[in-house]
Amino acid sequence: MTLGGCVSPFMRNGIPNIQKKERVIVLGDFQYSNPTKLYFGEHSLEGLNQELPRYGKNVLLVYGGGSIKKNGIYDQVLDILRANGKTVFEDAGVMPNPTVEKLYEGCRRAREGKVDLILAVGGGSVCDYAKAVSVSAYCEEDPWEKYYLRMEDVDNRILPVGCVLTMVGTGSEMNGGSVITNHEQKRKIGHVFGDNVFPKFSILNPTYTYTLPPYQMKAGFFDIMSHILEQYFSGEDDNTSDYLMEGLLRSLIHSTRIAVKNPTDYEARSNIMWIATWALNTLVAKGKSTDWMVHMIGQSIGAFTDATHGMTLSAVSVPYYRFILPYGLPKFKRYAVNVWDVSPDGKTDEEIAAEGLDRMVAYMDEIGLVRNARELGVTEEMLEGIADGSFIMEGGYKVLSHEDIVAILKESMKA
Amino acid sequence: MTLGGCVSPFMRNGIPNIQKKERVIVLGDFQYSNPTKLYFGEHSLEGLNQELPRYGKNVLLVYGGGSIKKNGIYDQVLDILRANGKTVFEDAGVMPNPTVEKLYEGCRRAREGKVDLILAVGGGSVCDYAKAVSVSAYCEEDPWEKYYLRMEDVDNRILPVGCVLTMVGTGSEMNGGSVITNHEQKRKIGHVFGDNVFPKFSILNPTYTYTLPPYQMKAGFFDIMSHILEQYFSGEDDNTSDYLMEGLLRSLIHSTRIAVKNPTDYEARSNIMWIATWALNTLVAKGKSTDWMVHMIGQSIGAFTDATHGMTLSAVSVPYYRFILPYGLPKFKRYAVNVWDVSPDGKTDEEIAAEGLDRMVAYMDEIGLVRNARELGVTEEMLEGIADGSFIMEGGYKVLSHEDIVAILKESMKA
Repeated sequence: MTLGGCVSPFMRNGIPNIQKKERVIVLGDFQYSNPTKLYFGEHSLEGLNQELPRYGKNVLLVYGGGSIKKNGIYDQVLDILRANGKTVFEDAGVMPNPTVEKLYEGCRRAREGKVDLILAVGGGSVCDYAKAVSVSAYCEEDPWEKYYLRMEDVDNRILPVGCVLTMVGTGSEMNGGSVITNHEQKRKIGHVFGDNVFPKFSILNPTYTYTLPPYQMKAGFFDIMSHILEQYFSGEDDNTSDYLMEGLLRSLIHSTRIAVKNPTDYEARSNIMWIATWALNTLVAKGKSTDWMVHMIGQSIGAFTDATHGMTLSAVSVPYYRFILPYGLPKFKRYAVNVWDVSPDGKTDEEIAAEGLDRMVAYMDEIGLVRNARELGVTEEMLEGIADGSFIMEGGYKVLSHEDIVAILKESMKA
Repeated sequence: MTLGGCVSPFMRNGIPNIQKKERVIVLGDFQYSNPTKLYFGEHSLEGLNQELPRYGKNVLLVYGGGSIKKNGIYDQVLDILRANGKTVFEDAGVMPNPTVEKLYEGCRRAREGKVDLILAVGGGSVCDYAKAVSVSAYCEEDPWEKYYLRMEDVDNRILPVGCVLTMVGTGSEMNGGSVITNHEQKRKIGHVFGDNVFPKFSILNPTYTYTLPPYQMKAGFFDIMSHILEQYFSGEDDNTSDYLMEGLLRSLIHSTRIAVKNPTDYEARSNIMWIATWALNTLVAKGKSTDWMVHMIGQSIGAFTDATHGMTLSAVSVPYYRFILPYGLPKFKRYAVNVWDVSPDGKTDEEIAAEGLDRMVAYMDEIGLVRNARELGVTEEMLEGIADGSFIMEGGYKVLSHEDIVAILKESMKA
């Protein structure tokens, strides 16, 4: 399982923190700021040569389990770092759910190396971890308590972060999200930091995503889709964000259908990488209360099993959306027509909406996504516990009860 | 007429500068960087209190003809500037097409006042002008020659710019575009500066747009639509940018239909303001060659008449798109289905595409847009000259000849 970087902007300390909007109409007062510079494309690693001269000599190179050594990315990055005269301090072994112990270790390395830049090479968890070290290295008290338990604003020195992305899905390459896990306290907390903690730059090379195994690739695809859907299914207005999300969904559906057949189709993989970034970099959340219950239930499944994050979302989504459909019928009708091309002629709203979800099911089966929670190792005995472990968010069409979640999970066991 | 801020990222010195892409497929190598912070909403002027402390004491307040004094925005801004202890230097009278003489004057004021921040209060031309002063004030040679005629990169001190937007359309509030006119040399040149020249912040209050007269409001709506269409009608791939533009177009069509009936509908005006920004802040151009011929012909009409910029685009668009339709048939079919909800059943591609343009015509007539160039003061005698004055861009489906442009203009005289 991985929760890496997949955070709701409305979740604080695992506790729902929905900011009730004073007006129902769209685009109430908000701020938008996204200073991350993106280098995109097959040759985008060249961007490192543009960025590195902006920072001092000492670089903390952060990565995960070592797959970047097998596929050659490690060597390429190191060559560029050396050519730019950098002294490299390594911080390897970042796990899918970065722990607080690892964070303390990273802080020590960053301070000891007097690093001027943290360069994260990996997926969302590696980027999340780099941001955690960025704000924590010079924190004068326990950063877990200050920045995760108490969610305080950062008031100490922030080390700049750059990312070289090797997996897509979390959007961590262009947002302030950072999830850290404390196993002793049994807490995973995602802090969405402000734009001063966003990566200064991120390098997005679609070819780096080619080598991911199909199961993980497909799970990532649905993680992206779920990020969009969980922002889309909220609100009752005609918000530009909804129109943009319909576009992102249509493009994602189109490109993922191609990518599962041919994972090295550059056009498909590049579009998917781009969609993943824009799905969770705050743009399409503007004016939306956002839902995030699929992530809450999926993450709770992840705590009971070792299931892959995206597949926990796919197992839960259809039962969840069928459950809340009556509370958001107009939006589900719109979803059917605008995203799945359902013809509305001669049908009731309920029929149109249901047909949309049917087409979503057919798509999911075509892609090869898990729709039955049993396939993830979920048993009947776990259901009450999973429901207990699911934080209740209030931004969607229906605030779920414990029993509602159990009912949704039971449906997922039948799918 | 106003050309203010409406610039193509591919136009350099008025001369087409299309960067031929080496690969047809989407999302080839590119960079994305947009550091402008946006404060959006009815209370967004409060954002000034957050921003002003970041800058020194001396502020150059830039505005146009004085409408901000009538509607009270001037007083509100001045109160906030004074409350933040700023010394204000005024630079009023920025014209719809800011001139090089005005630019020299602004540079003098900026230097004499030793200003630390340029605050632009107005529409796209005022924002464009502020960016021109920003790069030119400390330019050691003639900035017109260096930054407009020769299009050099900025290597001198750049004064930071903030914008308070009172009209929508140009996107100048979140891009590096800056158009300056030299009447003596009969040249209008738009330089698209890099992200170091983008406004540091922009304040977008939809209620500030309420007081614009209906004709100008409608012209602005079509300017936004044309920005999207002129990026959309290029390329033959399945680019995420196309899907995003379809979303923006659908949202724009929906909200403008409401706004022409009720110009003070906050939901409609706020969505339109947001769409205008995202239509021309570089996002949806990623992976697109872009066309921009409607702007080229429209601007040439503007040089021969005093027609309002957006209306020159609306007068040209339908004849232009009917003319190039055979060269981009698949895209025009997609436009009809995805934007105008044309049912494709039982129709040829040509019929579907034509029906899409018919629906666009019906929409334009509903909004009240000029479709006949005669209404703008164009006469038969001007047509050759307008065609001569139209720069030929090469990013669209058909590279136009002089005769093609004359034929399009003749169609526009009949509409």
